[in-house]
Amino acid sequence: MSTATDTAETIIFHDGQLDLLDQTKLPTELTRLVCTNIEQAHDAIRRLVVRGAPAIGIAAAYGVLLQGRDADRQAFGEAMDYLATSRPTAVNLFWAMDRMRDVMNSHDDDATLYERLHREAVAIHDEDRQMCRSIGANGAALIQGCRNVLTHCNAGGLATSMWGTALAPIYHLHEQGKAPHVFADETRPLLQGARLTAWELSQAGVAVTVLTDSMSGGLMRSGQVDAVIVGADRIAANGDAANKIGTYPLAVLAKYHKIPFYVAAPTNTFDLKLPAGDQIPIEQRHRDEVARPGGVQFVPDAADVINPAFDVTPAELIDAIVTEKGVIRSPTTETVGQHFAN
Amino acid sequence: MSTATDTAETIIFHDGQLDLLDQTKLPTELTRLVCTNIEQAHDAIRRLVVRGAPAIGIAAAYGVLLQGRDADRQAFGEAMDYLATSRPTAVNLFWAMDRMRDVMNSHDDDATLYERLHREAVAIHDEDRQMCRSIGANGAALIQGCRNVLTHCNAGGLATSMWGTALAPIYHLHEQGKAPHVFADETRPLLQGARLTAWELSQAGVAVTVLTDSMSGGLMRSGQVDAVIVGADRIAANGDAANKIGTYPLAVLAKYHKIPFYVAAPTNTFDLKLPAGDQIPIEQRHRDEVARPGGVQFVPDAADVINPAFDVTPAELIDAIVTEKGVIRSPTTETVGQHFAN
Repeated sequence: MSTATDTAETIIFHDGQLDLLDQTKLPTELTRLVCTNIEQAHDAIRRLVVRGAPAIGIAAAYGVLLQGRDADRQAFGEAMDYLATSRPTAVNLFWAMDRMRDVMNSHDDDATLYERLHREAVAIHDEDRQMCRSIGANGAALIQGCRNVLTHCNAGGLATSMWGTALAPIYHLHEQGKAPHVFADETRPLLQGARLTAWELSQAGVAVTVLTDSMSGGLMRSGQVDAVIVGADRIAANGDAANKIGTYPLAVLAKYHKIPFYVAAPTNTFDLKLPAGDQIPIEQRHRDEVARPGGVQFVPDAADVINPAFDVTPAELIDAIVTEKGVIRSPTTETVGQHFAN
Repeated sequence: MSTATDTAETIIFHDGQLDLLDQTKLPTELTRLVCTNIEQAHDAIRRLVVRGAPAIGIAAAYGVLLQGRDADRQAFGEAMDYLATSRPTAVNLFWAMDRMRDVMNSHDDDATLYERLHREAVAIHDEDRQMCRSIGANGAALIQGCRNVLTHCNAGGLATSMWGTALAPIYHLHEQGKAPHVFADETRPLLQGARLTAWELSQAGVAVTVLTDSMSGGLMRSGQVDAVIVGADRIAANGDAANKIGTYPLAVLAKYHKIPFYVAAPTNTFDLKLPAGDQIPIEQRHRDEVARPGGVQFVPDAADVINPAFDVTPAELIDAIVTEKGVIRSPTTETVGQHFAN
């Protein structure tokens, strides 16, 4: 494991190494973390060096290759099983590992197995770039004309290979010189909005204003938010969507203020085996993320702390889900089913 | 200005000095700040060394006396005008300064003016203690039987002379061994919930759990919140209430989940000259409170930041306002008027 400081590309795989932009250090340090074995890749995903549902899938796919050119089927299979345990909620991780496993199981030639797996990981990465472009175009139709769009957490380029999901429509409009101003919730506890969304949008030249999560309601009441758009970590067959903690209250507030609420996610974020969102497992993380922001203690030791990383927004609060295939308006089991049947 | 470390009393006036528990240092340091002139008192209120609407009023009343025993009417009057500029939203500050000015204007004897002003400041302090007891008893009737009560910011003993306002009913029930478990929103940006509410409740032996502001909605959805109770910094004649930023979205979420939402505040928090809450001035504070929690930079310099310290919750989202005089159910201009007429 080593570090370098040359590019802002989220994920690079080169010379048999997984080279990640260390997102835990942004925005004050632009540092890369290079993983050379699966333990390091697992740790990088668990510690959120790389995060965001699509990016986790890509990183894990490349992570399998860290077993090396000479690894056998059993070693690759073990890597897939092991990397799948790095985070529990984002379904893209399991989707990527299933896809790598399917490729391995259907490829009989041991001599070319590494090459075949490498090709599949690159395909997952390439498809993600195309997904960002398509979500950008599909979502832009929904938010064009908005002066101010609010987002939560980071579902931008840092969460994917390129433009992201929730931010893709904004980058799409930005290419035309028509990007709205973006309000970025800081997104406690890990401040991905303050650190990552604010950083990547201002790097790209999109005007962005950071607020604490508690300020969104007042902004909506004063008419300053025209639409809300967020990503997702897992979407059930009925359209219920798990996303970063704090998304559900935003959806309730948007409904109360009659502001459209959109979710943007690739189709591989759907878990069609789950009929509804109440069955999505929610990751519980360490108390220090809440109690010690920036390493400074704020919560006294005598107090308890809860730290669920995600919440589930029921489909009835979601006006539309944007995927690379199009837009699911008023998501239900029927409309989601039709989207996948097309 | 000097420091001492002997007591957790919020405000003490002794030997002509204003001795404050430094709330900016809690919970990791129990430190006191002693003010000997009005500039120091103004700075302590502005920097939130002492905060909470009732405590600001008490501290400012004592602050006037820092002009000294030999000060003349003009000097005391200037102190009242000056201290009233330390914070813009909490009406208790202006109420306390008006009360001190009325006493001065009706007291002709210059030789005993300091003594008379001192007696008034002590009366304001003593009345606040009685107010805490009465709000505790009146509010306990509303929340008894609740297993879990959620609060925001700190409207406890640290915000007043004793039990506080929102926390007074909890302390009242705690004396009977019947306190509910308290969920304390951390309350970004200044984390008064994590630092102050969690500290004072755990010091008192009340079970408390800290969560980020973004987690309250999910807790409500899962049925874990039986009531919400908060303080207020200013209440208009129709019952609209200004309180710490993040209160308004909590009220919307409570309404959506059919959870009772209560405001607890003394009658001197009402500003009956204002017909509605949209005329309450909202303090805008420095970007670093959002951008650099704990002194660590999270928001890139290129991004804008907003930092309103308060929001206004409309009366229709408030099930009841608890004062030292009783309970105003379904607050409106009429029911608030009746409460003051009694």
